[in-house]
Amino acid sequence: MDKPVFEPLTVESLPGRLADIAALDGNLGPADTWKVREVGDGNLNLVFIVEGDRGAVVVKQALPYVRLVGDSWPLPLKRSFFEYHALTRQNARDPGMVPAIHHFDEAQALIIMDYLSPHVILRRALIEGRQLPELARHMGLFMARTLFRGSDLAMDTAKRKADLALFAGNVELCDITESLVFTDPYFDAPRNRHTSPELDRIVARLRADRDLKVAAQHMKHLFCANAQTMVHGDLHSGSIMVTDTETKVIDPEFAFYGPMALDTGMYFSNLWMSYFSQRGHEADGSREAMRQWLLATIVEAWAVFREEFSRLWREERNGILYRRELFEDQGDWLGAEQALDHFLAGLWADTLGFAGVEMHRRILGLAHNADFESIEDTGLRARCETGALELGRHLAVNRRRIHSIEEVNALAERIYAAVVAR
Amino acid sequence: MDKPVFEPLTVESLPGRLADIAALDGNLGPADTWKVREVGDGNLNLVFIVEGDRGAVVVKQALPYVRLVGDSWPLPLKRSFFEYHALTRQNARDPGMVPAIHHFDEAQALIIMDYLSPHVILRRALIEGRQLPELARHMGLFMARTLFRGSDLAMDTAKRKADLALFAGNVELCDITESLVFTDPYFDAPRNRHTSPELDRIVARLRADRDLKVAAQHMKHLFCANAQTMVHGDLHSGSIMVTDTETKVIDPEFAFYGPMALDTGMYFSNLWMSYFSQRGHEADGSREAMRQWLLATIVEAWAVFREEFSRLWREERNGILYRRELFEDQGDWLGAEQALDHFLAGLWADTLGFAGVEMHRRILGLAHNADFESIEDTGLRARCETGALELGRHLAVNRRRIHSIEEVNALAERIYAAVVAR
Repeated sequence: MDKPVFEPLTVESLPGRLADIAALDGNLGPADTWKVREVGDGNLNLVFIVEGDRGAVVVKQALPYVRLVGDSWPLPLKRSFFEYHALTRQNARDPGMVPAIHHFDEAQALIIMDYLSPHVILRRALIEGRQLPELARHMGLFMARTLFRGSDLAMDTAKRKADLALFAGNVELCDITESLVFTDPYFDAPRNRHTSPELDRIVARLRADRDLKVAAQHMKHLFCANAQTMVHGDLHSGSIMVTDTETKVIDPEFAFYGPMALDTGMYFSNLWMSYFSQRGHEADGSREAMRQWLLATIVEAWAVFREEFSRLWREERNGILYRRELFEDQGDWLGAEQALDHFLAGLWADTLGFAGVEMHRRILGLAHNADFESIEDTGLRARCETGALELGRHLAVNRRRIHSIEEVNALAERIYAAVVAR
Repeated sequence: MDKPVFEPLTVESLPGRLADIAALDGNLGPADTWKVREVGDGNLNLVFIVEGDRGAVVVKQALPYVRLVGDSWPLPLKRSFFEYHALTRQNARDPGMVPAIHHFDEAQALIIMDYLSPHVILRRALIEGRQLPELARHMGLFMARTLFRGSDLAMDTAKRKADLALFAGNVELCDITESLVFTDPYFDAPRNRHTSPELDRIVARLRADRDLKVAAQHMKHLFCANAQTMVHGDLHSGSIMVTDTETKVIDPEFAFYGPMALDTGMYFSNLWMSYFSQRGHEADGSREAMRQWLLATIVEAWAVFREEFSRLWREERNGILYRRELFEDQGDWLGAEQALDHFLAGLWADTLGFAGVEMHRRILGLAHNADFESIEDTGLRARCETGALELGRHLAVNRRRIHSIEEVNALAERIYAAVVAR
């Protein structure tokens, strides 16, 4: 039988083409009751919401190019395959934290999954100044569980190697990160843009900053070569959907085997950027409580992460690394604790390194974030952005000599007072 | 057509089965002139030397189990596939340093390559006290070129990722290293053995040494997760053949994408072990010059390695890491030098870490080396082994705080005087 030809869905063609999928009947009801609307998911894909008598689903379809740019920027359909496999693994490692999948069609690069409602994108909630009481705990647990359980600390290593080989095919999406995150921001690359002329001076200074460039390339090397675990790969506040009580992590199409600290660093970085951007979304001092909540949620998430990672280290360390034969079975449980401390110390330094680079690429590179972009007063926006740029530089260069997350927060507050609030 | 069934060769069946291979006619002459003899290659495979009117070749065939142990220890034929692909890549990266391949038969797990004569195994030459004037230069260049050119410093990254996925299938041979090198030596594992009772006390001490165990597991994590480049994977003095003027690296069936420092560390480790073992092969002080030559050849190989790696960094750094756009193209060539210094500093520390672990596994684990094993006086052997164990512990634990290779040599000499020569 011939392989079916890829065809992009449209609002009109969708019910006819998906009517036969049994799982949809259960979730939606008969196809002639479906209401379909298209929603942009941001940059890359087609996304439809389909509502029927019995419920609603999201249909996400990859296109053979970047949706936002058009066919001048081709991007393989296979990213849908990686997203599907990443979602299944994440769901096994931290059940319920990703949308349930109802159907996957590899040839049509199509994933049908839960429609999350009334969830909103975390980035949007943060811009609106919403505090989310469960966020820190959910994300701390999610990061600890997915990162630990996908590594040689827990997995059967033959399975991990097979999985690593599978995800090594996600070349084009890794290439986006390799270029747009780790390289372009640090020189005058054609795809870059920044708030100009306000940031011109600091941008010139950062691009002439030798220590920063060397640090960013060190982090890039870790990204490329340090295949510790299956990472989400794009864990910013646009990849998380929230209500006051629920958190769901979406869009893992950038998943691959990489360093644990990529996910933790990118996540915290986006919260620190939100911290600096709040000033652009307040009329008066009304966001001060939000700023304090952001710093507190960072502290809490890191504490939850460390605690859960440590619990898994003690209870689920059944992979080939740091085997119990060497430690607990010899009565040397304190040796396992020492190894845990060393492990977390490395993860901490790398977390700060990736956090710093992420701040730079969001302000100097191609893919900016709405936290800053939606601040219309460019002078104010530039002040907020400068705060993040300065913190990012400090973290990337000094990542191995920073004591605690409280110290980073204290520095963020000093930078805020000196640069943003003035 | 059915896939041909794997059949082990014998001295008798070989000429008939290989007579039709065109490349052999050119290298050997007609099959009815061939003389075939089997030689053990050590532990894993069948190896035949075939001589004809016009020359000689080696025929190496994998068996579905470990030759030395028998079919109770199965090992996949596919290791021959990885060896073949590793040889072709090494030959492209440092031409002439591996045996030329005349034929590869995947189904028969068979590689036909140059018969190296009058080359001998480096380990044998060192035990005999032979100084090899070109060894340091050849091995320094080989390690720099293969390790640099297989990494994202030089390779097209899509090709490197495809290659990484290919070699991720070499699970069983990586498992041997993961278990026998990094884990078993550090507890009382069933496959271990050591010179007993002479070493019992130090073995107990090392297995109770928390810092050492944590360090060894850190190195194991790098082995498993740090996919920097295609490494040889088993670069000890039994994998190198030498004459006074030529050096050839053989047997890369353990190849995979791993840390650069694995190869450098294992190589230097075997030279330091040779240094300690010389005492067991001298009647009087006749090996003092050999000991000094060994220390000098270590210094020279590391200098050649650094020099060549640095040259490649400056001239062939065309991969996605540390791109010229960020450094040289901005006039910041000194930034590229700073990055090189940082890179080599990390490689140095990891080299010492892997070197230390390799010393331990050769004395405490399953696979001992002839340098020590051939010393019949077990008291003397244990003293030589103790020297290596002590140095190995020092290197593994203190790897990040050791200044230079000269300092390691000086320490080796102090340990030799205190422990071995007494």
